[in-house]
Amino acid sequence: MNRYEDPLALVDVTLFTIQDGRLSLLLATRKNAQEPYCGALALPGGTIHTDEDEDAQDAARRVVRTKLGIDPPYLEQLYTFSGRTRDPRRWSLSVAYYSLVPEQVLEETPIEGLEFVPADAIPGLPFDHNAIAAMAIARLRSKSTYSSLLTFLLPPEFTIPELHAVYEQVTGSTTNIAAFRKKVLDEGMIEPTGQRRKGGQHRAPDLYRRRGTGLQELKRTI
Amino acid sequence: MNRYEDPLALVDVTLFTIQDGRLSLLLATRKNAQEPYCGALALPGGTIHTDEDEDAQDAARRVVRTKLGIDPPYLEQLYTFSGRTRDPRRWSLSVAYYSLVPEQVLEETPIEGLEFVPADAIPGLPFDHNAIAAMAIARLRSKSTYSSLLTFLLPPEFTIPELHAVYEQVTGSTTNIAAFRKKVLDEGMIEPTGQRRKGGQHRAPDLYRRRGTGLQELKRTI
Repeated sequence: MNRYEDPLALVDVTLFTIQDGRLSLLLATRKNAQEPYCGALALPGGTIHTDEDEDAQDAARRVVRTKLGIDPPYLEQLYTFSGRTRDPRRWSLSVAYYSLVPEQVLEETPIEGLEFVPADAIPGLPFDHNAIAAMAIARLRSKSTYSSLLTFLLPPEFTIPELHAVYEQVTGSTTNIAAFRKKVLDEGMIEPTGQRRKGGQHRAPDLYRRRGTGLQELKRTI
Repeated sequence: MNRYEDPLALVDVTLFTIQDGRLSLLLATRKNAQEPYCGALALPGGTIHTDEDEDAQDAARRVVRTKLGIDPPYLEQLYTFSGRTRDPRRWSLSVAYYSLVPEQVLEETPIEGLEFVPADAIPGLPFDHNAIAAMAIARLRSKSTYSSLLTFLLPPEFTIPELHAVYEQVTGSTTNIAAFRKKVLDEGMIEPTGQRRKGGQHRAPDLYRRRGTGLQELKRTI
């Protein structure tokens, strides 16, 4: 037996999407039964259910499934936030995850109790959720420059201008689209589908898809 | 009240050093009181003491202090390993950290109950400690190419050939020393102390130190 109490073990998920062209987070209204801070907007999360969750990632997947009705297309562990004072209940530990969901997926799923909040205008959140969200945004930005991560914010088939727009929105940078096109194609993160986007007024642009099913990271060498 | 049991909350630390010119880990013999796997070599670690640890990082710091008698010069969270089956006791969660300690520091500290093991010849370890160590090695390698991380394996003042030797040892790559020197100086991760290493047979090489007190990461842009 320990002489001290076990920590409260939680997961919290920063859910990214694009809404009206802006990088946004999906926040959940804490329900009446969810003390403390019930009624407040917060990152979706909750305690790890050791009776049903196989591991913490499985707990985070359950949280997303409960909120969105879908398995998250991309879910990655961010960092574990812990300490004596971050939760008024007791010493607690939250394994934080972040997830990317295309806007189009959210249009097809009920998202009751969820609110879109632009990533650059997050309100005050309970616990240390502002710190968690800030780290998730920093991780997303950093990883955007050397991986295929941002393709998870797009539908399975997308055009290079669409990927470029998401890249500029997430990183807050302005990049020449010709240089961007050359880079993403040279790196082999995406590949042409052989099809073109139909229905536009201009010349139909080529469609691309993520190469492989998972995230591809670029090798960085000295 | 939860209807399920709280997870066992642990920290484990991968302790890196250089021993006989090789990247090595410091493993601890689990004591008699440490069930399960008592007597086995494992990553140093243990349960979070919610009565004395302020957060998980503080628990990891306590583990290093208990084993080495010193505060770890560099300690960073690696990943949280969790699940129903990784520990025979019950559903558990280990916040894993890695730490870098210069060989010279270990020469001045008693390290009873600790063993040096080369990073490329780690024996079978209990729990999922082999997976934790493998991820720590991968993180160290990856971060070596774009940060001042490896300087934490060296004494406060070092020569560029010493840093280059550690770089080649950790990354397993061969790099031209002139190109390496140019890169680390251009990046501004280290700075000359204005002193030279005394006592050698050859021309005394310039001494350098890490710039700033903490880790410096390079910006990577598209």
